[in-house]
Amino acid sequence: MSLTYDEFYNGRTGLTVGVNKILFSEETPYQKVEVYETDTWGNLMTIDGMVMLSERDEFVYHEMLSHVGLFAHPDPRRVLIIGGGDGGTAREVMRHSSVQQVDMVEIDEAVVRASKEFLPEVGDWNNPKLNVLFEDGIQFVKDIDDPYDVIIIDGSDPVGPAEGLFESNFMQACYDGLSENGVLTAQTESPWVSDYHPSMKKVFSALEDIYEVSKMYLAYIPLYPAGMWSFSFASKGADPLSNETLSRVEEGLNNFDTELKYYNPEVHRGCFALPNFVRDIID
Amino acid sequence: MSLTYDEFYNGRTGLTVGVNKILFSEETPYQKVEVYETDTWGNLMTIDGMVMLSERDEFVYHEMLSHVGLFAHPDPRRVLIIGGGDGGTAREVMRHSSVQQVDMVEIDEAVVRASKEFLPEVGDWNNPKLNVLFEDGIQFVKDIDDPYDVIIIDGSDPVGPAEGLFESNFMQACYDGLSENGVLTAQTESPWVSDYHPSMKKVFSALEDIYEVSKMYLAYIPLYPAGMWSFSFASKGADPLSNETLSRVEEGLNNFDTELKYYNPEVHRGCFALPNFVRDIID
Repeated sequence: MSLTYDEFYNGRTGLTVGVNKILFSEETPYQKVEVYETDTWGNLMTIDGMVMLSERDEFVYHEMLSHVGLFAHPDPRRVLIIGGGDGGTAREVMRHSSVQQVDMVEIDEAVVRASKEFLPEVGDWNNPKLNVLFEDGIQFVKDIDDPYDVIIIDGSDPVGPAEGLFESNFMQACYDGLSENGVLTAQTESPWVSDYHPSMKKVFSALEDIYEVSKMYLAYIPLYPAGMWSFSFASKGADPLSNETLSRVEEGLNNFDTELKYYNPEVHRGCFALPNFVRDIID
Repeated sequence: MSLTYDEFYNGRTGLTVGVNKILFSEETPYQKVEVYETDTWGNLMTIDGMVMLSERDEFVYHEMLSHVGLFAHPDPRRVLIIGGGDGGTAREVMRHSSVQQVDMVEIDEAVVRASKEFLPEVGDWNNPKLNVLFEDGIQFVKDIDDPYDVIIIDGSDPVGPAEGLFESNFMQACYDGLSENGVLTAQTESPWVSDYHPSMKKVFSALEDIYEVSKMYLAYIPLYPAGMWSFSFASKGADPLSNETLSRVEEGLNNFDTELKYYNPEVHRGCFALPNFVRDIID
């Protein structure tokens, strides 16, 4: 007998991963959270049968969701993460020396509990900049009093509790909760999965309507459907490809206390290059 | 009962694709060639249990293997393709109006026979520029008299008949068979598959030693392991990122009789951005 984790998209196309054992499985009030020990990817977390991260590949998603937006902002001090319960996005955000406070609003405490126990290297939980709140992110954004410099939408797929994160009124509430030079980044699904195209179109056209600058970018994530993942960047003016941003990337990375595994100045520029079929989805 | 095509890498990690029926299966003198009708990817060809292409995603591989090199050459007239029996690479090469002759050297006539029957839209078989030869590509390159402007290595993975395509002496023979401004591109496996790292290192360091210019580039291929695929570019001086090349890309694409589905000027520049972990494999 051999255990496998199996996830399907586009009909019967799927990913299969060899599993040694199940480490965690809980039906929470919001979703089903599971962690598997795999044969070659370290521990792997899934939510409602969709891969969130493995210990081996999580660096791609977390570096790309964080640094592309953070470096586009001239001086990010206050950062809000919606979702992100595994802690990886906050870990990357807190590498930026300008950042003073990170509010992470995760709806489901079970995600944080499972991550602390079974993905202990992913989060930087004892960092004094980090403030974890177990609340509904959509409501939290509506109630923002003290604006954020950067908001990062690190939710799961647009089914279940994360569905509202792809809505136009949520993107407007984020805009209203951002400071003058505010920047937003969000995970926005795989261009190869046709079921996601309506959500991708919806969220991207909302960003285009509401924000002064909006661009899609891509990263290679081996355990996500088809291995190609899209993210969206939006801002009140900051341009991720300006010379100012590009110098900030060079200089900022030199000041990090560790070398990243994916993100670098060339990747920052290159990730905004969209293949024609991806452009066609959002145009 | 449901049929699936399953392919594994890195232990028990794998791809599964829903299959309606098997269209072709033949043990040739060189390898096992199969074509499946799938549920959502059109017809899919495999060699020795490794996906070569599907009708739905083949454009990525063929556009990226061809145009990145062809546009880096100032005036490509004579092009050699080693392998490429499905016809897709030749189809893309022949879109370039400067190209007068394409010699495609495929070791296994069964690949061409199966492609013509079951992947009929992939090849442009009646194009008068195309000259198909059923010969050993390694020997063919050693015997080149009349040099080529561009050589494209479109072989399968470095096990079986394609193993020699990753050797240093083969890369030297290609160099010797190229004209003055000669350019070479080659498929060079997935950075996420650790079994391939030795081949990637070997081929890339041979290119670095032998050629004046060598660079690795990447593309998103959903049905290849981990969805991330590497290619290598090498030349006797042509720089794929020079302003001259970049203008040629812009102008050349405007003269194509069709819009491509993946490749465009931004992708040409962006594909050379290597994540840190990929650089580390070849450094």
